[in-house]
Amino acid sequence: MCGIVGYIGTQPAASEILLAGLQKLEYRGYDSAGIATISEGELHCIRAKGKLHNLQEKVASWNRPASLGIGHTRWATHGKPEEYNAHPHRDTSERLAVVQNGIIENYRELREQLRHHGHTFRSDTDTEVIPHLIADGLPRIQAEGLQAHHPSPLLEAVRQAVCQLQGAFAIAVISADFPDELIVARQQAPLVLGFGQGEFFCASDTPALIPYTRAILPLDNGEIARLTPTGVEVFSFEGNRVRKTPRTLNWNPVMVEKQGFKHFMLKEIYEQPGVVRTCLEQYLNGDWQPGMADSPIHLGLPTDFYNNLEQVQIVACGTSWHAGLVGKYLLEQVAGLPTTVNYASEFRYAPTPLRPNTLTIGVTQSGETADTLAALEMEGTRHSEGAPPPRLLGITNRPESSLSRLVPQIIDTHAGIEIGVAATKTFVAQLVAFYLLALDLAYTRQTLTPEQLHTLIEGLRQLPAELELILESQERYVETLAHDFVDTQDFIFLGRGINFPIALEGALKLKEISYIHAEGYPAGEMKHGPIALLDAKVPVVAIAMPGTVFEKVLSNAQEAKARDALLIGVTPMDEQEAAETFDALLPVPHVDELLSPLLTVVPLQLLAYHIAAHRGLDVDQPRNLAKSVTVE
Amino acid sequence: MCGIVGYIGTQPAASEILLAGLQKLEYRGYDSAGIATISEGELHCIRAKGKLHNLQEKVASWNRPASLGIGHTRWATHGKPEEYNAHPHRDTSERLAVVQNGIIENYRELREQLRHHGHTFRSDTDTEVIPHLIADGLPRIQAEGLQAHHPSPLLEAVRQAVCQLQGAFAIAVISADFPDELIVARQQAPLVLGFGQGEFFCASDTPALIPYTRAILPLDNGEIARLTPTGVEVFSFEGNRVRKTPRTLNWNPVMVEKQGFKHFMLKEIYEQPGVVRTCLEQYLNGDWQPGMADSPIHLGLPTDFYNNLEQVQIVACGTSWHAGLVGKYLLEQVAGLPTTVNYASEFRYAPTPLRPNTLTIGVTQSGETADTLAALEMEGTRHSEGAPPPRLLGITNRPESSLSRLVPQIIDTHAGIEIGVAATKTFVAQLVAFYLLALDLAYTRQTLTPEQLHTLIEGLRQLPAELELILESQERYVETLAHDFVDTQDFIFLGRGINFPIALEGALKLKEISYIHAEGYPAGEMKHGPIALLDAKVPVVAIAMPGTVFEKVLSNAQEAKARDALLIGVTPMDEQEAAETFDALLPVPHVDELLSPLLTVVPLQLLAYHIAAHRGLDVDQPRNLAKSVTVE
Repeated sequence: MCGIVGYIGTQPAASEILLAGLQKLEYRGYDSAGIATISEGELHCIRAKGKLHNLQEKVASWNRPASLGIGHTRWATHGKPEEYNAHPHRDTSERLAVVQNGIIENYRELREQLRHHGHTFRSDTDTEVIPHLIADGLPRIQAEGLQAHHPSPLLEAVRQAVCQLQGAFAIAVISADFPDELIVARQQAPLVLGFGQGEFFCASDTPALIPYTRAILPLDNGEIARLTPTGVEVFSFEGNRVRKTPRTLNWNPVMVEKQGFKHFMLKEIYEQPGVVRTCLEQYLNGDWQPGMADSPIHLGLPTDFYNNLEQVQIVACGTSWHAGLVGKYLLEQVAGLPTTVNYASEFRYAPTPLRPNTLTIGVTQSGETADTLAALEMEGTRHSEGAPPPRLLGITNRPESSLSRLVPQIIDTHAGIEIGVAATKTFVAQLVAFYLLALDLAYTRQTLTPEQLHTLIEGLRQLPAELELILESQERYVETLAHDFVDTQDFIFLGRGINFPIALEGALKLKEISYIHAEGYPAGEMKHGPIALLDAKVPVVAIAMPGTVFEKVLSNAQEAKARDALLIGVTPMDEQEAAETFDALLPVPHVDELLSPLLTVVPLQLLAYHIAAHRGLDVDQPRNLAKSVTVE
Repeated sequence: MCGIVGYIGTQPAASEILLAGLQKLEYRGYDSAGIATISEGELHCIRAKGKLHNLQEKVASWNRPASLGIGHTRWATHGKPEEYNAHPHRDTSERLAVVQNGIIENYRELREQLRHHGHTFRSDTDTEVIPHLIADGLPRIQAEGLQAHHPSPLLEAVRQAVCQLQGAFAIAVISADFPDELIVARQQAPLVLGFGQGEFFCASDTPALIPYTRAILPLDNGEIARLTPTGVEVFSFEGNRVRKTPRTLNWNPVMVEKQGFKHFMLKEIYEQPGVVRTCLEQYLNGDWQPGMADSPIHLGLPTDFYNNLEQVQIVACGTSWHAGLVGKYLLEQVAGLPTTVNYASEFRYAPTPLRPNTLTIGVTQSGETADTLAALEMEGTRHSEGAPPPRLLGITNRPESSLSRLVPQIIDTHAGIEIGVAATKTFVAQLVAFYLLALDLAYTRQTLTPEQLHTLIEGLRQLPAELELILESQERYVETLAHDFVDTQDFIFLGRGINFPIALEGALKLKEISYIHAEGYPAGEMKHGPIALLDAKVPVVAIAMPGTVFEKVLSNAQEAKARDALLIGVTPMDEQEAAETFDALLPVPHVDELLSPLLTVVPLQLLAYHIAAHRGLDVDQPRNLAKSVTVE
């Protein structure tokens, strides 16, 4: 989604710092960019359509020292990705500039009202109402005067403006008339402040700050802050001071480099064995044996967290929703808990009727996904009188995110920052979290014998080595196979049971980065419609792992073959029947069907990656897409 | 799916009768066809790839009188749709012929064993093992002799053969050595016998019988029957006689004609106002007013059917699954019952853990969908000791189908027979069934006030007239609009809330009959992946009806527009904001959001129909597809 950076300090290098910050946010997806700085009492605004280097070229040809500025990468929601719609947006006098993430829902009414007051609009965006609204209030505030202890008229004007906005937003504001101030505000869209040495930053996401500082302060909803070269003051939208303390991140800048891989996505695919290893080390008791009194898994949840649990509901979007579907299979079949998986965007407007003793799990890689946060927030307040408050759990790769302020319990997926827009290692880490949760529940609820539990845990421990085997043995082969699909327009992915969500995920990866229309289906549903699409031009990828539905998947694959489709099988190497059925194999090691999703997804990630790379596409920053979706 | 017909009688016109019967089954979908007859002590088998007229031409050039024969339309599962894979299949001597629906799961083992016994195979099908298996047993049975009262060696040979088959099948068998017998058997695939005047029929579905008789007898699983020119005898697979009585259908032949419409699908779209009217007349008390003691809805369910109900689970496939999603919205939001919707093919192998007081609803137009029946059968037996048996309800358009033998309660959707493979009127009728069920539950559970209930019922009563309005006012316009999409390769359909399933259904219709890769999404999920597909070549259809999610859908549509997608809106005519957002409108009358799916689906049906018709495709019998999916 859109990215915000802001700088105020002592260095006269605001432009360079803003551009470097925007570069760190590129992975979030954008289609235009811009910066505004204050230099010698004037506001300078430079914007460009398309990739960041277009903006960099424009800035290079115009170089003035500034120590205050804001920057933005825009992912179009209202109005096309053209330069005139790019941020920063300015008021009519062009002395005040604003960047914004989120969506202003009442922009139509505000625009009408402001036009009536004589303000001139130059874009199709919802954002542009904000600079006009601030400029509209400033003269009155300055004329009326402020109390002696009030920090500044600009702060007050921004405060009054945000109180009129409906929707979700994070904004940063500068004005040539207030050259020592950077005002920021947050409502339902993330914004983080950074503390450097004699300089202060704001950004919509922490990676932009990592080169400069590890001391950060996330703003909460309904907070507005004033940054000056000497420090930060935070207020509520009502105007009351808020006391807050910065925290320190344990990241380092090396984590966000490609380390020799052609793309971040490929690097992240290769990080998966290590990610699984880290997660298991983090949460598994290595010495556990059947018969020991304690659970082999320590997720850090309160001891009574599972008491009287009767069902689970999962809310998530996109890839996290797929992880939730695997989670459902595990929670139902392993831990005996009825589980539903909900699109967060649907659940928030039509939630399931309340049931007591329900665990609600929100899954979001970034911890900032707007729909998932909104669904959890609603669920946190929605309980009948006298009933105990709902049990909420978050699964995220960013425990410092907004998610942590909504749910009391978090499972950290420890995958390290993911830069590729198409999630790979964080998906696998989410799966591991669900395995551990389901097994911990199975231990507590005694739905598995200690011996069964031991076998599954031993199976989990072998996964990192098996993942390494797939990566070593297959990447070259998949790269070659991918050549055959450079001009393919459609793909169907099939799976059943616990590998049905992997079929969805395989299709989504391909769709996201190659723009091929790939669609995943539970294999048994193919006959109810999608089979009409099949002919020799539509390859079919089927996941067929020995277990409860192996023969059924092969039978569904036969139906596709009867329609001349090229069949690709994700299946163990030495399965004779599978080898006879498929035209091409993406072999994986033999493994318990229940654990197989952690392996079967990898060849599909590689396939999507290499098809997109052969097509010459921007794998890490696919068109139209955003890394974390912070608007509805 | 595949179609079976069989004839034995006194007329020497078996070929003509078989071809006419196959024609009535064409709507079920097929890619090759064939017949076998016995004439002057010889078996004659004629088969052809492709449409039925290919077979008709071949038969016309070879005309011999026969009064015994079997015919088949094949929808390929194992082996390509070539003539050598078409049914009937014969034994090595070519004196015995078999047609089969379903899938024989152990055909590989049987084939090896029979090859070992010297039988020669000529096809890639699973079916071919059956004639060889029967022929393999016959000499031994004839040598050993049968007890005096046993009807015939052929019956015994077929009986012993079917006992060795694993999987689902309906078969019909004839032999030149037994010219007065037609043997049929059923296991998990439908088969119906028909009683004419001195002639007897078998068929996989009743429409094939309607021109000849309305007296029918459906076989049950595990039954084998012997038809002769004098009557029918039914036995169990164990060899015991079974007493059965024919029943009489109230259909008439006119119902299965096109009545001036170019295609059955268009005729069936136009029948929808009448279907809704019939359903409402059937189940609504026309005189009901708030304050009256009784429910306004009479579904014929036992009085205690809703007692202590805590949740609902729906199992279905394809279009019926979409109806189930609308049902979930209604049952949750109107009747306050937590509801899950399951793919039957997934549920049967990984059912949700048992919960007491659960209502399970199976939705299947044909009442013969193999996966749905299997899921219901499993659910019927799966209950913990001492607990009351599970509550099962079926929603179907064919109350005489196999479904009725699995569930004690049925809601008949009264849509009349549907011939177009792409379901239209039966989908709308399924929706009406869910509305009535949800409102009846809301009355019983008092989750709506009598006034609210009254308002919704009045809204339902106005639907037939509103549907007529859409059909009258829009069809010409949609026909013209459809021209623009004759060469389109991809489509995205968006909806939220109760219209999300309609987006899925709109996409499925287009996919089924036009072979365009159309995909439906909950509008809020688009940002999490599918938006990467969007450019000027991918039109987006969004359903935006005023209500809880109207603004949200328009906002999602704006995001698509920002990527140059052509936007088509299903929305009320006079919505200014919607009119500004969309490039083309498919207007529907203003209606309560809760009732809107019954209207919004119609323009999408028309759009799919006209695009496919402009492309010159076989709308009523799309490639690869089957009307009722009687195999897994």
